Amino acid sequence: MREVNKTATATKYIYFFAQGKADGRADMKELLGGKGANLAEMTNLGIPVPPGFTISTVACKYYYHNGEKWPQGLEEELKQAMRRLEEVTGKKFGDKENPLLVSVRSGAAISMPGMMDTILNLGLNDETVQGLIKKTDNPRFAYDAYRRFVQMFGNVVLGIEHSEFEQLLEKKKKEKGVELDTELSAQDLKQLVSEFKKLIKEKTGKDFPEEAWEQLKMAVNAVFASWNNKRAITYREIHKIPHDLGTAVNVQTMVFGNMGDNSGTGVGFTRNPSTGEKQFYGEFLINAQGEDVVAGIRTPEPIERLEKQMPQIYKQLCEIFEKLEKHYRDMQDVEFTIEEGTLYLLQTRTGKRTALAAVNIAVDMVNEGLISEQEAIMRIKPEQLDQLLHPMIDPNEKVQVIAKGLPASPGAAVGKVVFSSDEAIERAENGEDVILVRAETSPEDIGGMAKAQGILTARGGMTSHAAVVGRGMGKCCVVGCNDISINEEEGYFTVGDLKINKGDMITLNGTTGEVILGPAKLIKPQVAGKFKTLMEWVDKYKKMGVRANADTPHDAKVARDFGAEGIGLCRTEHMFFGEDRINLVRRMIIADTPEERQQALDKLLPLQRDDFIGIFEVMEGFPVTIRLLDPPLHEFLPASDEDIEKVAKELEIESRDLKSKVEQLKEFNPMLGHRGCRLGISYPEISRMQARAIFEAQAEMIKNGKKVIVEVMIPLVGHVNEIRFLKKHIKEVAQEVEKEKAVKLEYAIGTMIEVPRAAITADRIAEEAEFFSFGTNDLTQMGFGFSRDDIAKFLPKYLEAGILKDDPFMILDQEGIGELVKIGIEKGRKTRAELKVGICGEHGGEPSSVEFCYKVGMNYVSCSPYRVPIAKLSAAQASIKDNKK
Amino acid sequence: MREVNKTATATKYIYFFAQGKADGRADMKELLGGKGANLAEMTNLGIPVPPGFTISTVACKYYYHNGEKWPQGLEEELKQAMRRLEEVTGKKFGDKENPLLVSVRSGAAISMPGMMDTILNLGLNDETVQGLIKKTDNPRFAYDAYRRFVQMFGNVVLGIEHSEFEQLLEKKKKEKGVELDTELSAQDLKQLVSEFKKLIKEKTGKDFPEEAWEQLKMAVNAVFASWNNKRAITYREIHKIPHDLGTAVNVQTMVFGNMGDNSGTGVGFTRNPSTGEKQFYGEFLINAQGEDVVAGIRTPEPIERLEKQMPQIYKQLCEIFEKLEKHYRDMQDVEFTIEEGTLYLLQTRTGKRTALAAVNIAVDMVNEGLISEQEAIMRIKPEQLDQLLHPMIDPNEKVQVIAKGLPASPGAAVGKVVFSSDEAIERAENGEDVILVRAETSPEDIGGMAKAQGILTARGGMTSHAAVVGRGMGKCCVVGCNDISINEEEGYFTVGDLKINKGDMITLNGTTGEVILGPAKLIKPQVAGKFKTLMEWVDKYKKMGVRANADTPHDAKVARDFGAEGIGLCRTEHMFFGEDRINLVRRMIIADTPEERQQALDKLLPLQRDDFIGIFEVMEGFPVTIRLLDPPLHEFLPASDEDIEKVAKELEIESRDLKSKVEQLKEFNPMLGHRGCRLGISYPEISRMQARAIFEAQAEMIKNGKKVIVEVMIPLVGHVNEIRFLKKHIKEVAQEVEKEKAVKLEYAIGTMIEVPRAAITADRIAEEAEFFSFGTNDLTQMGFGFSRDDIAKFLPKYLEAGILKDDPFMILDQEGIGELVKIGIEKGRKTRAELKVGICGEHGGEPSSVEFCYKVGMNYVSCSPYRVPIAKLSAAQASIKDNKK
Repeated sequence: MREVNKTATATKYIYFFAQGKADGRADMKELLGGKGANLAEMTNLGIPVPPGFTISTVACKYYYHNGEKWPQGLEEELKQAMRRLEEVTGKKFGDKENPLLVSVRSGAAISMPGMMDTILNLGLNDETVQGLIKKTDNPRFAYDAYRRFVQMFGNVVLGIEHSEFEQLLEKKKKEKGVELDTELSAQDLKQLVSEFKKLIKEKTGKDFPEEAWEQLKMAVNAVFASWNNKRAITYREIHKIPHDLGTAVNVQTMVFGNMGDNSGTGVGFTRNPSTGEKQFYGEFLINAQGEDVVAGIRTPEPIERLEKQMPQIYKQLCEIFEKLEKHYRDMQDVEFTIEEGTLYLLQTRTGKRTALAAVNIAVDMVNEGLISEQEAIMRIKPEQLDQLLHPMIDPNEKVQVIAKGLPASPGAAVGKVVFSSDEAIERAENGEDVILVRAETSPEDIGGMAKAQGILTARGGMTSHAAVVGRGMGKCCVVGCNDISINEEEGYFTVGDLKINKGDMITLNGTTGEVILGPAKLIKPQVAGKFKTLMEWVDKYKKMGVRANADTPHDAKVARDFGAEGIGLCRTEHMFFGEDRINLVRRMIIADTPEERQQALDKLLPLQRDDFIGIFEVMEGFPVTIRLLDPPLHEFLPASDEDIEKVAKELEIESRDLKSKVEQLKEFNPMLGHRGCRLGISYPEISRMQARAIFEAQAEMIKNGKKVIVEVMIPLVGHVNEIRFLKKHIKEVAQEVEKEKAVKLEYAIGTMIEVPRAAITADRIAEEAEFFSFGTNDLTQMGFGFSRDDIAKFLPKYLEAGILKDDPFMILDQEGIGELVKIGIEKGRKTRAELKVGICGEHGGEPSSVEFCYKVGMNYVSCSPYRVPIAKLSAAQASIKDNKK
Repeated sequence: MREVNKTATATKYIYFFAQGKADGRADMKELLGGKGANLAEMTNLGIPVPPGFTISTVACKYYYHNGEKWPQGLEEELKQAMRRLEEVTGKKFGDKENPLLVSVRSGAAISMPGMMDTILNLGLNDETVQGLIKKTDNPRFAYDAYRRFVQMFGNVVLGIEHSEFEQLLEKKKKEKGVELDTELSAQDLKQLVSEFKKLIKEKTGKDFPEEAWEQLKMAVNAVFASWNNKRAITYREIHKIPHDLGTAVNVQTMVFGNMGDNSGTGVGFTRNPSTGEKQFYGEFLINAQGEDVVAGIRTPEPIERLEKQMPQIYKQLCEIFEKLEKHYRDMQDVEFTIEEGTLYLLQTRTGKRTALAAVNIAVDMVNEGLISEQEAIMRIKPEQLDQLLHPMIDPNEKVQVIAKGLPASPGAAVGKVVFSSDEAIERAENGEDVILVRAETSPEDIGGMAKAQGILTARGGMTSHAAVVGRGMGKCCVVGCNDISINEEEGYFTVGDLKINKGDMITLNGTTGEVILGPAKLIKPQVAGKFKTLMEWVDKYKKMGVRANADTPHDAKVARDFGAEGIGLCRTEHMFFGEDRINLVRRMIIADTPEERQQALDKLLPLQRDDFIGIFEVMEGFPVTIRLLDPPLHEFLPASDEDIEKVAKELEIESRDLKSKVEQLKEFNPMLGHRGCRLGISYPEISRMQARAIFEAQAEMIKNGKKVIVEVMIPLVGHVNEIRFLKKHIKEVAQEVEKEKAVKLEYAIGTMIEVPRAAITADRIAEEAEFFSFGTNDLTQMGFGFSRDDIAKFLPKYLEAGILKDDPFMILDQEGIGELVKIGIEKGRKTRAELKVGICGEHGGEPSSVEFCYKVGMNYVSCSPYRVPIAKLSAAQASIKDNKK
């Protein structure tokens, strides 16, 4: 603050632009705001822009830091600027003969559309309106402009509710027996002006300021103030924009699109923002102001028609579009006005676009020589790519949203409601599309989830079982939809008064979390050839590997199709849930003797071996990281009395015995319980069976002349002795298989780093581990002490109170959990410099987390197959950013 | 190994001792073993020791590293040593006139009593036995010695089962119609010798080696080999003794205590090992060998009687005792033999003693000027002190142990069996002593636990609820007693066939985990004045503070009595379980509106304030760290349908509503759930009520002219924003109370560091926290990913397989969790150099963990009141060790 004071007299606050010359430039956004900087740039480019000037953000900041006072010198500078404007326009501010009218608009460095305020036609009063009438010979137009100005000024500057003015307007129309504003006469509008002024006097106790200079100063203050109105503050909070940037103020000569049929207004994109096609795209209205477009009374015409109606203007516009695109090297979104046959550009900015358009435009622009491949890569938001990888609801479709849950896995799905995994399987096998609706899912539901088009759960968060499995399968999934109440037994769910029966059709939107009544029309977005081109460039520039988490040959195939360079996490437990083996697994668990356990394992061995052969074949030549059994054993046993009864019958044992086994395996905190390598240490025979299945599969591949890179991963290691113990068993099995099959097996044995202690003692663990894979899901759970199944109880409050910025299960917490990752990598490589390091938590597909992984020196990330392109793009962007440094 | 080879010729392997001069010294234990070093030392002191020599451990190590061969030169050195021995004794090895007989004994650097082997009377054969007969004129004695030698040699050197010889001996006695060995004649014994030799021939295929030199070499090899027998290996594993130390071999001239009534043998302590009294203590047998004492055929006499029987010898022994104690500056445990009126010392070593004796001896020795105060402090094993702090079962009492569980909280308790907390309270209030027996305990049992003499649970580990609370209360507690089967409804428990009914008397031994039938006699160990003296010295030398974990004025009083310098952890939730408030707490939890919640809180406020006043008064002038509510709310609600019904009636609400609230609060992993500061953030009104209770109590103290040092501790912080959020609320409340009560409050606000992320980001957290208290229980749970309630499922296997050395909940894991603590302290003090740091987990009372806390620079440790002296002693020892460096 003191600094601002000191330099106040020396500071330039106002940047002028007119007649092809501007003080500012496009790269001065911080000082002039986006709008002001681009107006200056366009002026310098020789593009017709109504002359004006920008009061810089420095003035706004001073205003806030000094009790809402202007800095010394600003008023004088403003006067000079207005005099210059009078000179270049030949008009005079506040003059009753040839009045200069201006717009006063805010403009921040980061666009906050609609959040701050605008005043048009400033400079009008009872005297100057006469001048406008004279100049235009159009009293109705002049009084309409005057009326609008008083209304805007009253609202924006003096704080009177917009509706109060509207009521007077409505009353006037009623009085006159007309329906449209346009049907009011000049006289009516003149009366409205005085009624508006009366309202202002009543509400504020003061007269409407007739003096133009007074109006201008008040308007500038109002724009300054608008930076801190509630809407703007909220917007900045949501979009994480700093509160101390301040806004610039743009004062610009008014131009009117509503001065007759040789006038008009419009907006345009230099390319199609939906498809990216290289074609001008936009719409316009003849004899209208911007406001009228918004009001929606008249339907705008497509921009191509302007060619017929005003060929000169259209030609000029096309030239400007091309010039702007060449200059800005990106697709532009512009506003223009035609005043009595003269074209003015009011704004240009980088145009928003769909993912498809983003990809197509970027690739086209490289081909056109406008931008480099690296720039093309940097232009795509990785998260946006998701749109290209899943079916979506036709945006033209009108749908009835009946409930909203959490958007757990993107895409859309249509199907008949079913409430059980069994029924999902049955109906799906009969060719029906189904949506599996459950209170929550458990590993036993996997069969049904795989067969369903989509999954909807009433409980659970973004990392609940349904969500994780859904994303893994690339299957549309909405979770935690508290609005629905499921009655599984009677086969229906309710939302409010609505009852949806089993077999009724619904649609899920996994991208938004919406549940929609009936079947919506789905479209399969095109993965055009340009997308492929882009991904080729991505592969060229990225340095970090991208693998996929995949548990089945099918998933592995999807992963390969999406460009995965290996499997970073193959969860063997999902294989245990198959119908042909779940009861074998159960027999293994409830075995009373090691012999009984071995019998069950012996039967599981060939099944598991075939699983691996299937995956190895798809992944020929690529690394496959296989994680040994991880979840607590009770997950494989039934939970409810009814299920226990049923399973006991299948296993031909007493249900009492099974129940007692279930009880025995119950844990207070299963997340911190008997799972991961702890299982393997308690029952080495399980790990040995899995190792044997892996190595026998590898031996088979080798015999068939196929190469496979095997990485055996031991989960949940927290102490070097744990991996030491299991590594010994695994190596023994490998040696046995080598002997039996007379092959030489090459493989690596490594570990997940998912327990905080493992990260902290990574130097010790690297004595045994040949690779690390960070399991950041569990590392987040244990590092924060957050159970991801329970976090919904307090996370909303945490986000609301700003205690956490993001859900740490979605976006890696770099400060804390990331620090553990960093420590783990540093310590691990201190022991074993060549240690291969990756990540296989959900974060492996989240862009900011992928960038973090790159920065801390990981060799690869691994994510759901459907996120592989996203992770690759993020990795490429991280490399490119790094090179720029 | 190569080094051993190279220097082999230059190495001296044999250390001689005889006639007041020895090659070795007491400080050469590593080389000569404990026994050999002390024999040398005694010889140098002029104490009569049978002459002999020690073969060093270097020879043993060479033997193991070189395919069980002797190093070059050893055989020659051995021959020379034997020649020297012949010279000093005037006898000849293998001579039939005047044979030299020797004992061959192992002796390692670290005592492994009974683990390795001994051969006596070596040098006897059919010829030399004749010489012995001539010398002693006692054929029976000579043949008995011969018989014993052949038997020991056959067993130890040749590996024949001891029982095989015993069978022949038994057969002989039957044959002769006698009962005792001593009744066998010389002739019988002579026959036995040849039968033994025949057995040896049969079993080994070789003749018994008649040649004395051969015998000696074989015996030395056998002693070397005994280092690696199974018993010895197991012993070393249990006691964590390195396997590569090797053993020394002591060869010593035989002396005989069984050569008539002027001979004898005995053991003695230089002070009373039970009480520490300064009085010789021991026992002896006339005309006997050490073996006979062990055999238990004759009852030894107390050592005082020797004064009457052999006054000269007794006097000499007393002088030796005094000399040894002065020389070794510690209480000695000696073995002696009297051979025909001549006294020989066979061994001296530091005597084992009870805790009481250890304290008394240490203090006495300081007073006697023998040792310094620091040495006295270093002499006491902190863990041993526990014996002095709890009642114990009279060791003279014969008890019937019916089951064994885990020794969760030391001491002993006698009482009638009850199965519910309510009945425990009821009976206790009627003056009955009760033992509360439960499957496991929950916070609802606290009332009954407090009233019971002891607690016994069938389930749970050393850190289960019962164990933690039991230790906290200093109450005898046995947990995880799987042997018992409880039928609560019918009011009994069974152990095998035994049925113990409600009201039956049992005794618990919390130090051993034993459950005893009926009431055993208990003794209250005296905390003698010398214990107090010792603790005064401890306070003088320790630098780290020691506080106690205490939740009630009673516990606070106990803590002060044991010397606690403040409260390091006052758990406010325990106050919530009081009968007068639990339902208020429940009303607060189930409140549907903030108003309802506030009503309940308003009623809790005065109760909680009185709790704090009570504690502050006891702790006047000392710091009190109060932790805000920590456990998940569901712990305050009933769990079973029956209890829900009951509580709903009390609260006058629908049991269905209560049940649904209970369901709603259920968590998958409560340890990682909605608890700690997460509660306070969700319901700031709870934290505010607690803060208000604290500050109003403080204000009251101040008004009464009393000083109180208040530290408000926020639990489970993982992110700086959590403490920032709650600190603001707490400070607001403090300001309110300051205004209302017109006082100035001094207090600090800090946090538990118990979440790994908190340790990792301690620099950030110290921006807000004014102190840290490491909650190493939770830090261990989350750092390892071990649920302490579930760890029993795999910990036994982990300890057995050597994956973990100790239960990390008992002994702080310094490598991993300790590293987190270190990181936390370093980062915390980087932000706030003066940050006060303590520990309040269970580890705060465990000696090795306390030493760690000192080393990493903590200001204090806090532990259960009953462990305060242990923690203080550990802290003093850590300081003293540190000063020595």
